[in-house]
Amino acid sequence: MGRQEPIGVFDSGVGGLTVAREIMRQIPNERIVYFGDTARVPYGSKSKETVTKYSRQIIRFLQTENVKAIVIACNTASAFALDTMQKEFDLPIIGVVKPGAKMAAQTTKNGKVGLIGTEGTIRSGVYAEFIKSFKPDVEVIGKACPLFVPLVEEGMWHDTITDQMAQRYLEGLKQQDIDTLIMGCTHYPLLRSTIQKTMGEHVNLVNPAYETAIELKNVLERESLANICEVDSPSSMYRFYVSDAADKFKAFANAILPFDITMTQQINIEQY
Amino acid sequence: MGRQEPIGVFDSGVGGLTVAREIMRQIPNERIVYFGDTARVPYGSKSKETVTKYSRQIIRFLQTENVKAIVIACNTASAFALDTMQKEFDLPIIGVVKPGAKMAAQTTKNGKVGLIGTEGTIRSGVYAEFIKSFKPDVEVIGKACPLFVPLVEEGMWHDTITDQMAQRYLEGLKQQDIDTLIMGCTHYPLLRSTIQKTMGEHVNLVNPAYETAIELKNVLERESLANICEVDSPSSMYRFYVSDAADKFKAFANAILPFDITMTQQINIEQY
Repeated sequence: MGRQEPIGVFDSGVGGLTVAREIMRQIPNERIVYFGDTARVPYGSKSKETVTKYSRQIIRFLQTENVKAIVIACNTASAFALDTMQKEFDLPIIGVVKPGAKMAAQTTKNGKVGLIGTEGTIRSGVYAEFIKSFKPDVEVIGKACPLFVPLVEEGMWHDTITDQMAQRYLEGLKQQDIDTLIMGCTHYPLLRSTIQKTMGEHVNLVNPAYETAIELKNVLERESLANICEVDSPSSMYRFYVSDAADKFKAFANAILPFDITMTQQINIEQY
Repeated sequence: MGRQEPIGVFDSGVGGLTVAREIMRQIPNERIVYFGDTARVPYGSKSKETVTKYSRQIIRFLQTENVKAIVIACNTASAFALDTMQKEFDLPIIGVVKPGAKMAAQTTKNGKVGLIGTEGTIRSGVYAEFIKSFKPDVEVIGKACPLFVPLVEEGMWHDTITDQMAQRYLEGLKQQDIDTLIMGCTHYPLLRSTIQKTMGEHVNLVNPAYETAIELKNVLERESLANICEVDSPSSMYRFYVSDAADKFKAFANAILPFDITMTQQINIEQY
């Protein structure tokens, strides 16, 4: 696999773009092929079997694009499918959960870490497992926040209704006196200011997207896969694929990426 | 096709249970096979092509259960796929849009009808088309309410946050002086009291689920397909299938049906 080949990044939809954005920032000379499974979004309420099957189809598709490594930029898919995918495929695959868990374990002083995410991510218990592998005596308190994703997708990033919903979801975590909170869903960094305001400034927010980009950089260097050549403009370096109509995806992408996406291609993911 | 065979009812997930509930109430001696596409929910933000493909797979599956007629208990699928499905399959297929549209046309006095639903349903323009076919001079004012479905699925049927969201979504319709409002998504009847309170008592709410059950009864009688035999208990008359893990489906179903579902079977819908 050549150093100039792209990184494959996938998510159930648009959320993983916050991970792609961090990779673009931190490793600007890597090409990216992004796949958003917009026909089957959301993954958060689906079962392990279903999410694993979807992940397998997507990695098969990304391999047709000659990717040199894969980032599962979706917490639910990372929680449910990472292990199986690493066994089934012969290329570096990283998820967002482990890097986020590691940072949370390093950050907490009082050993009380909060975790917010989809039902699937919380139920899986995978964050807690990884956190305890780094620091066994940490207590992890999880809370599913199913309305955060639709609120983000409605563009209600700064909104009184979002504030109230955050109050309600986060009240229990505040009472438990956590000092670190993992934003365990790729949509949530877009609610960062609301979450920080609700929790208070003394709580450290962990953004797994940020930690994942660092981890990816390390893996590429370790495996001698980092691109060392000169690079072009964003329009030629980044390719975007979706499994359903691209209009809404493009609008969302253009709201959070530092450049405008011009082309997004729709593919039939069930064929893979 | 025998009179004792079941009706096939399908939806993207749990919403269509409000339609199944009306059929159970109004035609209590008909068997029902319900399919909820919980692995691929929601349909509301997906394209016509995708929703048509999903509907085709589901009808193929329902045919393996020897259904004598099909009810597309999902506004988005009715709006996008009904025509095509009626052409492709040789059994009576009815959707929820036409019966709802007919009642709205009959109800309005001032010719101003509001329509709330998913983005897909609103964008399709199918409700307006049907309404105008019954009463050409009606003005139809549509408003997509994407957060209503997750609010219902969070169980927030009576909640101050839902009230505020309803205020925001429905404000424009109130200002346009509509006298009739179609609840154009199968989840919305569960928010009926909030919607009525927000719009005011002078606005007539149309529930397409109710009208669809009447239409189904008429179709079965016209086609000599109505069951005229004695029937058993609900547990043997109603079968439930889903495309993903059944737990959440069962909990929701038990909250809105007049009896407890004991068995729900998961099938791989992509094979059909």
